[in-house]
Amino acid sequence: MGALDAGCFEDGLQNRIGLEEEVEDMATAEAAKVVGGSEMDSESDAESTRSIEDAVRVLLQGLGEDHEREGLRRTPHRVAKAFRDGTRGYKEKVKDIVEGALFPEAGFETGIDHADGASGLVVVRDINLFSHCESCLLPFSIKCHIGYVPSQGRIVGLSKLSRVADVFAKRLQDPQRLANEICVALHDSVKPAGVSVALQCWHIQFPEERKCNFNTNSLISDKQGWVKVLVSSSSGIFKEEKSSFLDDFFSLLRLRGVVIEKGDATHSHVSHWCPSRSLEVHLSNGHCLQISENDKASSKTTVPQTSMVAAVASILCCVGEDPSRKELLGTPSRYVQWLLNFKSSNSDFQLKDHSVCNMSSYGVTNGNVTSTNGIQLALNLPFCSQCEHHLLPFHGVVHIGYMSKQEGIDVERSALLTMVHFFACKLQVQERLTRQIAEAVYSIFSNGVMVVVEAYHNCMISRGIEKVGSNTATIAVLGQFSSDPKTKSLFFQAIAKNATSGT
Amino acid sequence: MGALDAGCFEDGLQNRIGLEEEVEDMATAEAAKVVGGSEMDSESDAESTRSIEDAVRVLLQGLGEDHEREGLRRTPHRVAKAFRDGTRGYKEKVKDIVEGALFPEAGFETGIDHADGASGLVVVRDINLFSHCESCLLPFSIKCHIGYVPSQGRIVGLSKLSRVADVFAKRLQDPQRLANEICVALHDSVKPAGVSVALQCWHIQFPEERKCNFNTNSLISDKQGWVKVLVSSSSGIFKEEKSSFLDDFFSLLRLRGVVIEKGDATHSHVSHWCPSRSLEVHLSNGHCLQISENDKASSKTTVPQTSMVAAVASILCCVGEDPSRKELLGTPSRYVQWLLNFKSSNSDFQLKDHSVCNMSSYGVTNGNVTSTNGIQLALNLPFCSQCEHHLLPFHGVVHIGYMSKQEGIDVERSALLTMVHFFACKLQVQERLTRQIAEAVYSIFSNGVMVVVEAYHNCMISRGIEKVGSNTATIAVLGQFSSDPKTKSLFFQAIAKNATSGT
Repeated sequence: MGALDAGCFEDGLQNRIGLEEEVEDMATAEAAKVVGGSEMDSESDAESTRSIEDAVRVLLQGLGEDHEREGLRRTPHRVAKAFRDGTRGYKEKVKDIVEGALFPEAGFETGIDHADGASGLVVVRDINLFSHCESCLLPFSIKCHIGYVPSQGRIVGLSKLSRVADVFAKRLQDPQRLANEICVALHDSVKPAGVSVALQCWHIQFPEERKCNFNTNSLISDKQGWVKVLVSSSSGIFKEEKSSFLDDFFSLLRLRGVVIEKGDATHSHVSHWCPSRSLEVHLSNGHCLQISENDKASSKTTVPQTSMVAAVASILCCVGEDPSRKELLGTPSRYVQWLLNFKSSNSDFQLKDHSVCNMSSYGVTNGNVTSTNGIQLALNLPFCSQCEHHLLPFHGVVHIGYMSKQEGIDVERSALLTMVHFFACKLQVQERLTRQIAEAVYSIFSNGVMVVVEAYHNCMISRGIEKVGSNTATIAVLGQFSSDPKTKSLFFQAIAKNATSGT
Repeated sequence: MGALDAGCFEDGLQNRIGLEEEVEDMATAEAAKVVGGSEMDSESDAESTRSIEDAVRVLLQGLGEDHEREGLRRTPHRVAKAFRDGTRGYKEKVKDIVEGALFPEAGFETGIDHADGASGLVVVRDINLFSHCESCLLPFSIKCHIGYVPSQGRIVGLSKLSRVADVFAKRLQDPQRLANEICVALHDSVKPAGVSVALQCWHIQFPEERKCNFNTNSLISDKQGWVKVLVSSSSGIFKEEKSSFLDDFFSLLRLRGVVIEKGDATHSHVSHWCPSRSLEVHLSNGHCLQISENDKASSKTTVPQTSMVAAVASILCCVGEDPSRKELLGTPSRYVQWLLNFKSSNSDFQLKDHSVCNMSSYGVTNGNVTSTNGIQLALNLPFCSQCEHHLLPFHGVVHIGYMSKQEGIDVERSALLTMVHFFACKLQVQERLTRQIAEAVYSIFSNGVMVVVEAYHNCMISRGIEKVGSNTATIAVLGQFSSDPKTKSLFFQAIAKNATSGT
């Protein structure tokens, strides 16, 4: 506690910028003890945090990892913190948020009086939120749009719409229920003439699907290769057939590129939107899941381990959920299934074992590997990896440039993809991933290798600091790329050209 | 304290989502008292909050407002909270953030060894931050990009780069000093081979400049009508002439559309970037300020009142700043000058007093007012207003559609702009602004009026919840627009068409 002066602590209280984690936690526990008035609560909180940490250690062991190695030592602590933070909405009260932020405003007496007064519709668009999927426990992104029609001569502070939405986002959710809960909560607390909520949701693909084609240049709104749904929920005046408020709400969303038609938004299969579900069931909308024989075999080899599943179930209890709730029944095993994609492997990857081929002419396009000025290029290789500090996905693209010593030696793009997949599918950090890929390619193409990895980190985006849009680029250079600035510059130009041409 | 159970309180501690403000503040004060170990600190904090609240009341009185009216009653409290939150960086310690987030990582022993290992450059791009301008106290937006080269075999957790940057953003700043401070702090705490920081900063224009042309469809990166600067700061290996790390950093930024050339970033006039400065001095880069006689006259009529200036100076003291620091000398009077743009006026606005003209042919383009299907259109009228709940700017565009009873009656676009300016330049809420504009237009064009206001609210973006990109749309409809859905629909189409054509 030495480093903890009062000013420093107070910041920790008021702000989302944390102090060093241990200090922060001690302070939180201390403060909760005193102000809550009950030592029981703070003790049970500390106990549930410890239980989550223990559960995470079980998961790390199940992944074949040494949870005492430096990079992982505090991972259980970070994961516990993220889980508790990501589910804090169970303890938050909408009433506390909205009270004190209702303002009397002349002209909004009835809210629905078209003829005599300027009837009002208030819409806050493009609120970025994050929630956790109740089917698989992974975070999913939300762009939330909320409209309401003031009534009884009062309006609510705009930021409260976002805060109330976040209360329900910080629970285990599926998109439709989230929309419904936000709508009902605002209707009950603000008591307007009506509320309408539209959510655009994006869920990451599971890596075994291999369909993912992340484009780091696209914004959140055109994420390629993601599972997307659009849901909406309305109350009061928005549901009245003769009223035009729902049309107006949708018109205002259309100005931001969000296209919804009446009755279009709510689909029955939304409850099965999570990609983990598509691995186990036929979708309700009639699309039959295609599992190849290979996939079946590989899923057999990764049968979720009972102890890992039990550990995840205990995490659900710790955050205040009921693992026997119908929607959560398969969740622990689905989350374990996700984690097992990143199981530590003892085998090493040798690029030369994978389809190094003798090409008749150097520099000819080879399975999408192209060349420019003697540099072979494999750009935009998609990957999804798992951050070892937070057990959260990071995903993006790898760009590889390399130069061969011998003419006629080259490698298929598919072999490079397999290599990227090999290094990505484990607990990783982007810095190491970049270096490992560079060194693997350099083992064959020793004239020069350059690797650029561009990725979005869920641990930067969905946790505490929520820096939406922030992204990380790492570089590794070997051989001629490091000695000759011109070669490096050509490679950067190739990446830029490729990004703008959208190839 | 009845509503305050321990679980609820703990959320208030850990998370940026606040409880109802009073509850939160009580909890903060209580907790700080106990954990900080010193009642003195908590008392002095509470006292300084009260002092800021008193100062804000002086400002509200200076603006001719009744600070006891419902919309303003808790404004001093909110402003005090926002000021303390926006300057919390003075109390935060970089060491606390970085410690515990340094991870050993093989392959990053030297950081600069090009020949033997894959040398690393790690870049986090597009971190959205907000700071307060030390020249005028208004918030300004930042897109922050940080690169560093690991050394001594260790890397730092990616999110810490963003957290450290935020420590310095949450102080009164100018862009170049902010870049320098982030760079030095990361260099000293992480001890890498080098750090480079690039900041894109946007500052709102003062409304009297009238040059502002906000485009609600453009992202933060192409804010029109804003004062923009690009600054950078580097240390260690990034400053060595023969090293290519700075080039690589800039190349990675170019992939995100940020173009910097070496030596291009730091301009001497950056210290005078604040638009409030351009009202008083010749810019150091030789551009002479053009103040028309009218502007001079109007600035004379808005001489800052001594008591208001003293109140702002006391706020500077309360947040831990020294008002006699050279850079802050003129700040209180500049902030008061900004506020006085929104001084309450007793006069009312009558649109019919402003250039209503008899047009020879109805439906002909008239000073940029265009018509479609009998609806007269005035789209994208820019405005800047001041949120009465937080004393923070909100800005955007107003779209007006109206229908005349008498053929040949119309109004110049410039008159509508003057009207929008009249209603915007006071302490406002968007809901009221929309209604007031609609009613003013309806007083002449009583066949039908529809007003859509689209705006970005600093209180949503730069304070607590920091929902970057979120924006608010409000509608008021009167007459034929409310009775005929087709008329309304045509107006929405016109707005959409106008937005995409960029007119």
